[in-house]
Amino acid sequence: MTIRVGIIGTGNIGTSHAANLARVVSGSSVSVVFDADAARAREVAGDFGARVAPTVIDVIEADDVDAVLIASPDAMHAEQALIAIAAGKPMLCEKPLAVGDVNARNVVDAEVAFGRRLIQVGFMRRFDPGYNRLKAELTASGIGEPLIVHNVHRNTSAPYGLRTEQTLTNMVTHEFDINRWLIGEELTSVMVLPGKRGPLTPEGESDPILVVLQSQTGVLIEVEAFCNAQYGYEVQCRVTGSRGQAVMGDGAWVTRSADFVRGTELPELWLGRFAEAYRMQLQSWIDSLKSGGPLLGASAWDGYAAAVISDRAIEAHRTGRRVDIELPAKPPLYC
Amino acid sequence: MTIRVGIIGTGNIGTSHAANLARVVSGSSVSVVFDADAARAREVAGDFGARVAPTVIDVIEADDVDAVLIASPDAMHAEQALIAIAAGKPMLCEKPLAVGDVNARNVVDAEVAFGRRLIQVGFMRRFDPGYNRLKAELTASGIGEPLIVHNVHRNTSAPYGLRTEQTLTNMVTHEFDINRWLIGEELTSVMVLPGKRGPLTPEGESDPILVVLQSQTGVLIEVEAFCNAQYGYEVQCRVTGSRGQAVMGDGAWVTRSADFVRGTELPELWLGRFAEAYRMQLQSWIDSLKSGGPLLGASAWDGYAAAVISDRAIEAHRTGRRVDIELPAKPPLYC
Amino acid sequence: MTIRVGIIGTGNIGTSHAANLARVVSGSSVSVVFDADAARAREVAGDFGARVAPTVIDVIEADDVDAVLIASPDAMHAEQALIAIAAGKPMLCEKPLAVGDVNARNVVDAEVAFGRRLIQVGFMRRFDPGYNRLKAELTASGIGEPLIVHNVHRNTSAPYGLRTEQTLTNMVTHEFDINRWLIGEELTSVMVLPGKRGPLTPEGESDPILVVLQSQTGVLIEVEAFCNAQYGYEVQCRVTGSRGQAVMGDGAWVTRSADFVRGTELPELWLGRFAEAYRMQLQSWIDSLKSGGPLLGASAWDGYAAAVISDRAIEAHRTGRRVDIELPAKPPLYC
Amino acid sequence: MTIRVGIIGTGNIGTSHAANLARVVSGSSVSVVFDADAARAREVAGDFGARVAPTVIDVIEADDVDAVLIASPDAMHAEQALIAIAAGKPMLCEKPLAVGDVNARNVVDAEVAFGRRLIQVGFMRRFDPGYNRLKAELTASGIGEPLIVHNVHRNTSAPYGLRTEQTLTNMVTHEFDINRWLIGEELTSVMVLPGKRGPLTPEGESDPILVVLQSQTGVLIEVEAFCNAQYGYEVQCRVTGSRGQAVMGDGAWVTRSADFVRGTELPELWLGRFAEAYRMQLQSWIDSLKSGGPLLGASAWDGYAAAVISDRAIEAHRTGRRVDIELPAKPPLYC
Repeated sequence: MTIRVGIIGTGNIGTSHAANLARVVSGSSVSVVFDADAARAREVAGDFGARVAPTVIDVIEADDVDAVLIASPDAMHAEQALIAIAAGKPMLCEKPLAVGDVNARNVVDAEVAFGRRLIQVGFMRRFDPGYNRLKAELTASGIGEPLIVHNVHRNTSAPYGLRTEQTLTNMVTHEFDINRWLIGEELTSVMVLPGKRGPLTPEGESDPILVVLQSQTGVLIEVEAFCNAQYGYEVQCRVTGSRGQAVMGDGAWVTRSADFVRGTELPELWLGRFAEAYRMQLQSWIDSLKSGGPLLGASAWDGYAAAVISDRAIEAHRTGRRVDIELPAKPPLYC
Repeated sequence: MTIRVGIIGTGNIGTSHAANLARVVSGSSVSVVFDADAARAREVAGDFGARVAPTVIDVIEADDVDAVLIASPDAMHAEQALIAIAAGKPMLCEKPLAVGDVNARNVVDAEVAFGRRLIQVGFMRRFDPGYNRLKAELTASGIGEPLIVHNVHRNTSAPYGLRTEQTLTNMVTHEFDINRWLIGEELTSVMVLPGKRGPLTPEGESDPILVVLQSQTGVLIEVEAFCNAQYGYEVQCRVTGSRGQAVMGDGAWVTRSADFVRGTELPELWLGRFAEAYRMQLQSWIDSLKSGGPLLGASAWDGYAAAVISDRAIEAHRTGRRVDIELPAKPPLYC
Repeated sequence: MTIRVGIIGTGNIGTSHAANLARVVSGSSVSVVFDADAARAREVAGDFGARVAPTVIDVIEADDVDAVLIASPDAMHAEQALIAIAAGKPMLCEKPLAVGDVNARNVVDAEVAFGRRLIQVGFMRRFDPGYNRLKAELTASGIGEPLIVHNVHRNTSAPYGLRTEQTLTNMVTHEFDINRWLIGEELTSVMVLPGKRGPLTPEGESDPILVVLQSQTGVLIEVEAFCNAQYGYEVQCRVTGSRGQAVMGDGAWVTRSADFVRGTELPELWLGRFAEAYRMQLQSWIDSLKSGGPLLGASAWDGYAAAVISDRAIEAHRTGRRVDIELPAKPPLYC
Repeated sequence: MTIRVGIIGTGNIGTSHAANLARVVSGSSVSVVFDADAARAREVAGDFGARVAPTVIDVIEADDVDAVLIASPDAMHAEQALIAIAAGKPMLCEKPLAVGDVNARNVVDAEVAFGRRLIQVGFMRRFDPGYNRLKAELTASGIGEPLIVHNVHRNTSAPYGLRTEQTLTNMVTHEFDINRWLIGEELTSVMVLPGKRGPLTPEGESDPILVVLQSQTGVLIEVEAFCNAQYGYEVQCRVTGSRGQAVMGDGAWVTRSADFVRGTELPELWLGRFAEAYRMQLQSWIDSLKSGGPLLGASAWDGYAAAVISDRAIEAHRTGRRVDIELPAKPPLYC
């Protein structure tokens, strides 16, 4: 069974989702595409073997659409979600679910009235390996119960000008969600403390800022956000717990400090280290077979070369000497 | 179009490949399975919606097998590859292609005689993001032309006892291949220098060892291999080039040293940092839709909570005060 | 000329200072010692070739005391500083200068009335190589003008029980001073936000805490302090500036993020890397000569061995072969 | 008692030693200086309060020279050491002890004939905190018995042109000595394997090179040396032991891999982290007192400011509010 997805909105993120659903994710295809820019919609549909629908409703109600992906401008999310609920179609809705809490509540109420969950919101950090490793630390064998959490969030630059309220609704909203998920508690208060304005901060706006939140049981959560950081993009999270500290930093790597050691875990087996290589090897192979294009991995010739080198290495080990390796001419098939 | 793969051998690696092809890779399915242990074959076939074939030939020649994955014991690879070539079926053959260079050459000759490439060898490191980043460093804007390469390869323990010749053919063979690929040259000599024997090294065997290879243009390649390292599994590679040095280490992270700075690149945009989270979010969503199981990502309630917190944060920013966040009771649908 | 120092207080820190002044620092000696525990004073005086004085005043006024080091309990600092000012003796006063701002002001007023600076306060972080490297980053060629500063300060455990007010006056006072020094501005406001209480936090106290300060030009300074962190001691400081970010972390190491690279500087020459080794080599040599004890560095035999190995290495390089190294029997003088 | 040192040779390293002995090391002074360049000798002598001697013998035999520091060109070390032995004067002789093993042996024989150790050779890495931490790992509670050691040694550029034999005698000689010291064994064989020649390597020379040594019990020691590395200076050492691995890298930091964790130790107390800051604070204070120059550390005003901020922080903690900090005008004494 293949889940046929209808895409609403083919900006950067909608197109990225479409590419994943059509070419990377197992069990899905892209069947229908809508964008306010019809030419753009045609282009994306062509790339992924889909057809174009003239309206959002046409996407949602199409017989060949099993599920909907909402990647339209933020202000349209709530309305489109309500249409999909009315049609009983499951959807992945890019964050935010809605602009404004009243609009968000309307969507919740409609889903509750429908009586079954249809909506997944695109807070994708919940699937990030780094955050999942970090959450796994919040146990007695890790760093214990979380007491204080420090988040760093930098954007290289603020697209389309900087407005601090947008920093909160579009950027820091990721931390609002992921910290609720991380500690498994609701947040009960919020403060926003402006840092010194940087050279790119417009009059009347604040950047960088420090947002301080508190949770039901008193966990203090800091978010240091900087939209125009210039030096690059980064997301880090440090949780200090009742018996240690864990930091998720570059490369989704988690470092634990406990019992007077700061360190990272080493795997016992190779599968974990190379899991992604195994997946991509197979995907590349399947892609080549489907397209009839060239095989991109190691050839039989490469396998032969490795066998020759192994044999000479065995001889070198037995004799204790340097052994020459000679390969015959490479057949044209492999050139 | 779906590529239907026949799996030969359902040990650890064969089963891992089958799981990826059936559930993770886009565009493939597992149709037929063979293993010398028929019960094991039935179990794996059941897990992935495939049927069991009574012999290797039955897998290879099956009409519902578009391609073959050879994950049998090493000594059988060459013979099975020859059968698949005779049947004109493309295959991914786990490394090594063959035991012994003569057997490997036979496979090459058969493929050349067939006239079209059918074989990809499972040197999966060529698809590892870390090695690919490292290879990207071997340019004028990176570290320049490679001069000397140092590889570290540790296994936690040697399965089934340690024999140094197996270290070379099964373990270091990865470095034989990946270094050829990395520097794009053939290797022309090999030495094997035994280190001091560790406490777990059997009489007459060497572990750790240092393998020293040289390439056509004189690049010196060291491989420090240790089968019974005990402390964990790790693979590292350091390339010293004509204008700098690059190291692939933990987490496939590449560190460049050039112009008196040792560092790593920061992304400009978030997509790179969270590419894997986006992929896994979609795969989880599609899996839930296919299975009818619960949605594992953020719910509409989570989207609503984020909207409420964002609104209160805006108020906090406007007023400069701490603002309380209150959520109504969570509807049972989300509990 | 040798500066003869009188030590007031021989607890841990006073004794550590005395050892440095007597044995490590160039140009100083310890001449007189006082401690309320006379036996302790005698022991320390004996170790460092000093005599014991019966009172604080006797230390300060002694003819053979050129300067005073005040390492008594915090509450006595101000009074002893006033005595030393009255005697016109320069002093290094351990932090805090006084308990309570009124007492501190009295000392300032007395020094101003005296008309010449006599007091250095023991905020030793100003001499830490890490903080000095960090401060050097606050330039156009580093990370630019500081906008927001995040400090982490962990103690393994709170000695003598935890009281949050002591956390502020004894522990966080280091950050009060070093951040003033780092950004070169006065601080203009302070907030203290309690984190969730850890398992070792007494009733009515807060630990961990977040202290938020603002400077004259609006730099936001966070201090995350945790007295009973259990996992170990650490001090970190991250400055985000107008064009990059610098972090002082483990080992006083500074990492700069700018222009899409996160990295550290590599030295051009060896002297920087081994400056401490050179200093300690000479100190060890001088100590051996003074005490008549054994020389702890490399012997002439070690120099001879290195010469032999170098000669054999030259031969190995010339011949391309493995060359044996043989040393004659080691003379008993070197055993 | 002060050890009065005579300096022979005032090039870079001789001057650096003189500065340390005169101003940093406790218990030493520089009394006499010789250099073939008399003007240079006068300059250095002037800087450190010493007088100039017209010949090497005049330095060694001077009544006001208790010990000699030999920092002349390499080829003169042996002869000068013999003179000092004849005079019965202890000496720190820069490495190498001699050029050529016969000359080195002559020095050893003379010292043995003298009957008492007079010579310490300047292999300063033995005093490096990093190497000492690494050596401390070679125990059952660390990484166990060493089996294989990998050394990296890079120079930014080869001064005065590159000759591979000089690479071995001047640069890699450090590794010859430090590896003997590290594992506590003599080395029994040596190979030199040339890497691919870099763009700055002269015809007929090799750079980078791999030197492979073996010890009495079979420990394999690799030294990857590169004189014209261009990217910067670095020294690293990785020891793989019978139960783990330890790496000394940037900042003399040691990372241990054992039991599936790779990490570094955290201190329990602050003294270790700030030991260098404490030392430099005292040295700076003593230097100011001796020179009559300004005090460079925190002033009484700084102590007062910290007291004021602490008081306001206590108020902020009690009230839960942001509290303003106001300092009176700073007295001119502190400006």
